[in-house]
Amino acid sequence: METPAEIFATCCIRPLVLLMMIIDNIEIITSRANERVKKAVAVRKSARDRKRTGLFFLEGARLCADAAKCNTDIDTMFFSDKAFEKYGAEIEETAEKSRSVYRISQELCDFLSETESPQGVFCVCRMSEKTATLPLADKKYIALDDVQNPDNLGAVARTAEALGIDGMIVYAGCDIYNPKAQRAAMGSLLRLPVIRTDDLCSLLSYCGSIGLKTYASTPDSSAEKITRTDFSGGVVCVIGNEGSGIRKPVLDVCEKMITIPMKGRAESLNAAAAASVLLWEMVRE
Amino acid sequence: METPAEIFATCCIRPLVLLMMIIDNIEIITSRANERVKKAVAVRKSARDRKRTGLFFLEGARLCADAAKCNTDIDTMFFSDKAFEKYGAEIEETAEKSRSVYRISQELCDFLSETESPQGVFCVCRMSEKTATLPLADKKYIALDDVQNPDNLGAVARTAEALGIDGMIVYAGCDIYNPKAQRAAMGSLLRLPVIRTDDLCSLLSYCGSIGLKTYASTPDSSAEKITRTDFSGGVVCVIGNEGSGIRKPVLDVCEKMITIPMKGRAESLNAAAAASVLLWEMVRE
Repeated sequence: METPAEIFATCCIRPLVLLMMIIDNIEIITSRANERVKKAVAVRKSARDRKRTGLFFLEGARLCADAAKCNTDIDTMFFSDKAFEKYGAEIEETAEKSRSVYRISQELCDFLSETESPQGVFCVCRMSEKTATLPLADKKYIALDDVQNPDNLGAVARTAEALGIDGMIVYAGCDIYNPKAQRAAMGSLLRLPVIRTDDLCSLLSYCGSIGLKTYASTPDSSAEKITRTDFSGGVVCVIGNEGSGIRKPVLDVCEKMITIPMKGRAESLNAAAAASVLLWEMVRE
Repeated sequence: METPAEIFATCCIRPLVLLMMIIDNIEIITSRANERVKKAVAVRKSARDRKRTGLFFLEGARLCADAAKCNTDIDTMFFSDKAFEKYGAEIEETAEKSRSVYRISQELCDFLSETESPQGVFCVCRMSEKTATLPLADKKYIALDDVQNPDNLGAVARTAEALGIDGMIVYAGCDIYNPKAQRAAMGSLLRLPVIRTDDLCSLLSYCGSIGLKTYASTPDSSAEKITRTDFSGGVVCVIGNEGSGIRKPVLDVCEKMITIPMKGRAESLNAAAAASVLLWEMVRE
């Protein structure tokens, strides 16, 4: 714990606005029954509540600051005094972009968090009202057909962004506003263009019609090896559900099936690792 | 819950030996103070206890059965009656290779487990007394220089095995018998040849002397792009610590530095994803 003097010394080099906020202007919430806290927990826990309210929950100093950086509409921010000592810069950055900001007690931190060691920084954000976007010719997309695991969804988004994939198409499975997926994505799900669809088959047909290559990835070793696949120009690669792979109608609409050739035990390559290799091949020059 | 009759019906198609064991021959442990339980928890929790005793802890029906399959020396096996209903085949396979087998109460399951939803199958195994192995010419190795995160260690082992890498070299960091790493590896750490070293620099010098190429992977974009690197024949690729990368003396002893060229945000590629891409390039044909 820093002393009050030390905190002050740190604060002095920051804008006056936050310093004032710290000292007396920020309302402190200590009750689990507080409406804003209840709403945060509801959208953290339930995909249905996220859909109904158009709100989602983020946890972590860096992730909340990332949300602010990319102009996510932050409805409510919560932080603990202890968090402010450690993550002053991130909290400041986030607070400046938040509609409302609250301090919370340490007990509420533990209540709001779904991690073992909460950092004590949380946001409730509004989903962006994107106009229904469609894939563009000459771009590269990764499409997820009912991927369930939030860590896999987040890892794919993170790797896709790092490698320069242009966007992600998501059908069913884990929703992109799942807080675990958002944490695993380290902000990528807020930055990477994401097209959500209720009809992946039609979307893939459309992709084909504008000249995008459409490939279905599979562990089936008789499919075309990705080392022989032409990934030049516009491409959509589909990744399937962790247990059952890509659905048959989706396979049928794709131009071809492709696979990662393996020398070892095929079942050992997990979904995120397979996706990393596939994403890499899509952009490899 | 299945009824006793249903359990019996399932059991009838299994060898008599296990059926008998189920019914009355297996001692049941219910106390946390039991010496075997205490030993299991000690080696689960502490790398020092693992080192001192030469024992390590595995959790999960499939992982324990994998250990039995690859002839890991299983000292003690624990399972709950509920686990037996669900994972009878795996428990049977494991029990047959275990020196001693115990049933445990549901409460002890939760006590032994470090997962949220314990499967109720646990083993305490002996580390294998491998003779001090050295890398071989013409083989491909991945070397970890102080990798800390058990999930990363496990993921690298799993991907390396799937892609047909010949072995792993481990210096410091997370120990390979860490139960989280073992779970993330899904048995790969029990099957893949692992060379542990206290002196990675000397080992890499030795590798060079027998004609292995030695490459240090780095996020530094001025290093050679892995798409231009010659991975033919024998190669060792070094991956560094998650925070600080590869240590300077190790960099110095390597033939060259290599990097994954990125178009997006470099910091977004996590350690396991970067390792997947690197391992793939090592074996790509």
